[in-house]
Amino acid sequence: MIKAGIIGSTGYAGGELARLLLQRDDVEIIWYGSKSYVGQKYASIYQNMFQISEDTCLDDNIEALADKADVIFTATPQGFLASLLNDDILSRTKVIDLSADYRIKDVAVYEEWYKMVHKTPQYIKEAVYGLPELNREAIKTARLIANPGCYPTCSILSVNPLLKEGLLEPDSIIIDAKSGTSGAGRGAKVDNLFCEVNENMKAYGVGGHRHTPEIEEQLSYGAGMPVTISFTPHLVPMNRGILVTAYGTLKKDVSEAQIREVYKKYYENEFFVRVLEEDMTTQTKWVEGSNFVDVNVKLDKRTNRVVMMGAMDNLVKGAAGQAVQNMNLLFGLPEQKGLKMIPMFP
Amino acid sequence: MIKAGIIGSTGYAGGELARLLLQRDDVEIIWYGSKSYVGQKYASIYQNMFQISEDTCLDDNIEALADKADVIFTATPQGFLASLLNDDILSRTKVIDLSADYRIKDVAVYEEWYKMVHKTPQYIKEAVYGLPELNREAIKTARLIANPGCYPTCSILSVNPLLKEGLLEPDSIIIDAKSGTSGAGRGAKVDNLFCEVNENMKAYGVGGHRHTPEIEEQLSYGAGMPVTISFTPHLVPMNRGILVTAYGTLKKDVSEAQIREVYKKYYENEFFVRVLEEDMTTQTKWVEGSNFVDVNVKLDKRTNRVVMMGAMDNLVKGAAGQAVQNMNLLFGLPEQKGLKMIPMFP
Amino acid sequence: MIKAGIIGSTGYAGGELARLLLQRDDVEIIWYGSKSYVGQKYASIYQNMFQISEDTCLDDNIEALADKADVIFTATPQGFLASLLNDDILSRTKVIDLSADYRIKDVAVYEEWYKMVHKTPQYIKEAVYGLPELNREAIKTARLIANPGCYPTCSILSVNPLLKEGLLEPDSIIIDAKSGTSGAGRGAKVDNLFCEVNENMKAYGVGGHRHTPEIEEQLSYGAGMPVTISFTPHLVPMNRGILVTAYGTLKKDVSEAQIREVYKKYYENEFFVRVLEEDMTTQTKWVEGSNFVDVNVKLDKRTNRVVMMGAMDNLVKGAAGQAVQNMNLLFGLPEQKGLKMIPMFP
Amino acid sequence: MIKAGIIGSTGYAGGELARLLLQRDDVEIIWYGSKSYVGQKYASIYQNMFQISEDTCLDDNIEALADKADVIFTATPQGFLASLLNDDILSRTKVIDLSADYRIKDVAVYEEWYKMVHKTPQYIKEAVYGLPELNREAIKTARLIANPGCYPTCSILSVNPLLKEGLLEPDSIIIDAKSGTSGAGRGAKVDNLFCEVNENMKAYGVGGHRHTPEIEEQLSYGAGMPVTISFTPHLVPMNRGILVTAYGTLKKDVSEAQIREVYKKYYENEFFVRVLEEDMTTQTKWVEGSNFVDVNVKLDKRTNRVVMMGAMDNLVKGAAGQAVQNMNLLFGLPEQKGLKMIPMFP
Repeated sequence: MIKAGIIGSTGYAGGELARLLLQRDDVEIIWYGSKSYVGQKYASIYQNMFQISEDTCLDDNIEALADKADVIFTATPQGFLASLLNDDILSRTKVIDLSADYRIKDVAVYEEWYKMVHKTPQYIKEAVYGLPELNREAIKTARLIANPGCYPTCSILSVNPLLKEGLLEPDSIIIDAKSGTSGAGRGAKVDNLFCEVNENMKAYGVGGHRHTPEIEEQLSYGAGMPVTISFTPHLVPMNRGILVTAYGTLKKDVSEAQIREVYKKYYENEFFVRVLEEDMTTQTKWVEGSNFVDVNVKLDKRTNRVVMMGAMDNLVKGAAGQAVQNMNLLFGLPEQKGLKMIPMFP
Repeated sequence: MIKAGIIGSTGYAGGELARLLLQRDDVEIIWYGSKSYVGQKYASIYQNMFQISEDTCLDDNIEALADKADVIFTATPQGFLASLLNDDILSRTKVIDLSADYRIKDVAVYEEWYKMVHKTPQYIKEAVYGLPELNREAIKTARLIANPGCYPTCSILSVNPLLKEGLLEPDSIIIDAKSGTSGAGRGAKVDNLFCEVNENMKAYGVGGHRHTPEIEEQLSYGAGMPVTISFTPHLVPMNRGILVTAYGTLKKDVSEAQIREVYKKYYENEFFVRVLEEDMTTQTKWVEGSNFVDVNVKLDKRTNRVVMMGAMDNLVKGAAGQAVQNMNLLFGLPEQKGLKMIPMFP
Repeated sequence: MIKAGIIGSTGYAGGELARLLLQRDDVEIIWYGSKSYVGQKYASIYQNMFQISEDTCLDDNIEALADKADVIFTATPQGFLASLLNDDILSRTKVIDLSADYRIKDVAVYEEWYKMVHKTPQYIKEAVYGLPELNREAIKTARLIANPGCYPTCSILSVNPLLKEGLLEPDSIIIDAKSGTSGAGRGAKVDNLFCEVNENMKAYGVGGHRHTPEIEEQLSYGAGMPVTISFTPHLVPMNRGILVTAYGTLKKDVSEAQIREVYKKYYENEFFVRVLEEDMTTQTKWVEGSNFVDVNVKLDKRTNRVVMMGAMDNLVKGAAGQAVQNMNLLFGLPEQKGLKMIPMFP
Repeated sequence: MIKAGIIGSTGYAGGELARLLLQRDDVEIIWYGSKSYVGQKYASIYQNMFQISEDTCLDDNIEALADKADVIFTATPQGFLASLLNDDILSRTKVIDLSADYRIKDVAVYEEWYKMVHKTPQYIKEAVYGLPELNREAIKTARLIANPGCYPTCSILSVNPLLKEGLLEPDSIIIDAKSGTSGAGRGAKVDNLFCEVNENMKAYGVGGHRHTPEIEEQLSYGAGMPVTISFTPHLVPMNRGILVTAYGTLKKDVSEAQIREVYKKYYENEFFVRVLEEDMTTQTKWVEGSNFVDVNVKLDKRTNRVVMMGAMDNLVKGAAGQAVQNMNLLFGLPEQKGLKMIPMFP
């Protein structure tokens, strides 16, 4: 029995994580951390778990938790884990961090985009970027996993194959992404009220969204050279789902069939990445509630550009599901364990 | 030119009121009151009015405003106007109150349901309940208008005709109402976040919603005897619209045609109440953005009950539109002035 | 391995059934019947099942299917199964019918409300109404299960306890129900287009909805006397979920605590019925994607009425999940097998 | 009194046009054409107009209509007007065509993208592309107006200023557009059902959407050279609204302030184009129900790209509102007449 603790268990990602773990018989959640709801029953915050979880929210005490837990998930604001992590914790337990604290290798880049000082940069090098499709082996032996951001997961899996194959001009990449509103978190803000989001669409963080350097870093590894991208996220009136529409200019004269082959080859052994057939459309609804990423590609000969498309559930493969996938790898379990949910439709 | 001031101009009802008044050339808004946004441009709060309103939000100073305004609209929390109103204000200006402070004639009932002490009960008697379809003549000469609640407006107009005609058992009335989320206001609360409301439906305030005594009082006038009702409001994942489904037991053996005749007779001269034809359905979308209330009725012979249905835009006829309708009456203008918007579809 | 066939597998209920069964390792779907999509890959109709189901849609040939299947699910229009069922089929396989053909014991009532002649009334008596919470033992040995309607499941489970205890006036029951749009099916109709349903709410089938006699029959068994109800369904702009708000007049002077005790007693051993605590609200989102029905109750002393509330996922407990629950019972499996999904939120 | 006829009056654009015209006292709709609903009351199709329009749908007889109407609006499928137009019609009445039949000057391009033979190419040259912000003077004296497409209107107004100023690489333009579902029309298709669109997002027509050559042609006029673009439309779960996010590479070293100045200069006299301030966001909700296009721009120095953003109501400025704007110009009326609606929020 894996003993798991969740710090930040009452945000949307934390709630999804609890939901996924509660459906397993080989994991026990021993700590529902929540600064805002200490002392309240977890099922009173997430009533979907009524009569399923009988536990009460505890304080965010990572030191106390490290004594008891085999794995700690931190679904916390940026800077939280960075301000607390130490050797003692890492020697006693595994840590899967759903925040951005250890995702970016260059601490200067982190500090510039997140506008905060990184308190424990000494652990950045050790942390493994937890995208199993790229870093499976390294994840298995890590102590500290930097669970990828939602936009980066979908963007990287959509764009990386062609970039890695050297088929795209590295500086031609534009990623226009669209996200459901759960990505904005459960904080009480006017901007996220139903009446403000419903029947509305907008771009936000144009030119400055924090997921930009994370995507660039990973794509740069793939390309083997520095990649600078345009990245624009949008807020969509739906609960879940990320849709990526990415554009890249071809370096070579290849056919759509050849491009499609690249994707098939890259993902032929990846259960969670589904390369759609030519006449299928990537739609967020077709992956909702699952750990799948659906990708597809279209060659536009008129412009010599490839349109790369990805769809994913931001709370599952984009957060909690990927964290569980990483946990499975960390503990030597089958990678798909507890993650084979078929997407819910409609 | 009517000089109008709005206190509480940055809530949803206040915003709708500003929107309606700004489209008129015989009204000038001279005061955008807003405790939360003092000093900010109104169009930065309601960007739909960018380049239309150039004004800045002012404090909620009703005394200062009374000197300048021909009419003051208060779209404020319960108790606000009651705590400030005095003879001086009423002698200088007309007041249209969108809160519940002066709607209920029995101050004890008000204080019980609203759980606060009424500071100026001496003005309750004078206040006219601003439902023009019931109180048109009294409104014309009033100084203080108690603009009806959203649920009461739709409920009363749907149920009153049959009750007044003595066709319904007074204590059989059950009103099951459904409202769009703008009715919950623009306050930043977790319960009203997009992800909490979207794809969700719930009842709230069951057995205790504050609009209950307001509906009962008005229906009692119609029935000529005390009426006690069951009233259950529900939150619906849409921005605007109230749908009322009301049930009443017939006292006499009448046909659906006779019942329909009652409605037609009651509303034949009412522009804003549309009695639908037999095969039409009351739907909130068919009245959205307009000051119309659509009503229809169905006799269920098996149960000897009548189902009375009403649909309305909660921010227009349920708040700002009705306030403008009252203003028109107060100033001797055509009642429909500035209110003939055709509902927007889809 | 249970061999299952689904006739009508491309409607929303059929799709949900396939989704639930594909996640089990003790059931094999051997027949995806679909009159409209014969010869097309099932995963091209329900792309959520891409790379999960590789099968192709077959014709609706129940005779051929009966030879191969241990159980046949019919998620078909009213009258379909009634026109085909015979002894031969029933002797070879179990049938779980998601249509209304065998739900109502009085064939005259069926024919009046469904406006069609019942072709095989001889099987009505044998059919077991598949609501496990009421008929668990009878289900286990049945050949033909009449899987309940969505509204009836939620209505009966919400209202039956108090009625059965003799606490409610049988003729006082009013059920005001609200449903997500998946209940309207996947047929291409203007009325169900996104722009017609979104930002809209309406009642439909007022006084004449076909689920009325089904609810009445089951409530009559509970009450031990004929029960006639008012039932009004409404269409809500959400995909899934049914919310029932039911009203009944008390026969005796009881407290809310006593009423709550009745529910607790009735459902204490029922995994899928969750009696909420006093301060909790029944909301459709808290049960979405699960087989749970959440119920709660409120006593309104002013009117001497009880408000009974239920929330449920119409495609799971209201259709496919309940069908699986029945299948589990039919085959001697644990009733909860494959149905312990925790509701998805948000 | 202008006598107007609408052919195709029961689609969403036709309905919006009727709604706008019915609110004017200087226009009379004398013909509600609708092939699908001949003989039915118009207000039974669009119940929002109940008691406002008493007319009945007529056949799509443009010849008969030309005798009576001062202006004919055709909100019809591609190829309809092209198959019927003749000198006789144009000599008797003005025609404002909301289809694409006369938007593209090169008939070969039209025939390639629309996959149909153009029956009356002789009128293409004469037709004026009805985007008043570009072609105001030509519109005033035209007989035949090609009312622009929804995506083109928003895209051109967002991108043209910088392109015309020579600041952008012409072949660097990528337009990623998002539209509410009313853009897909009122036809009964499974893909547009509520449950298929709600909680979902997808791209469609990738690399092949018919609005591409229309945008390219107009941008080419601005750039003074051929412009080829990438254009990807997306379907968003909302009724109304188009959001354009366009990307272009800078040719010269300019500041964001300089770029912003270009927009201000271009649109300083345009009532319907609102150049937002630096800290404002283009959001579809802020223009809903109005004829405004809100535009904004962001310089991304890291990538040397400009992100150009536009938001618009696809049924108003993207269809019916623009048609009315064109009508006003054709008849020498103030251009804003009947189009000063303030956007509805929320």
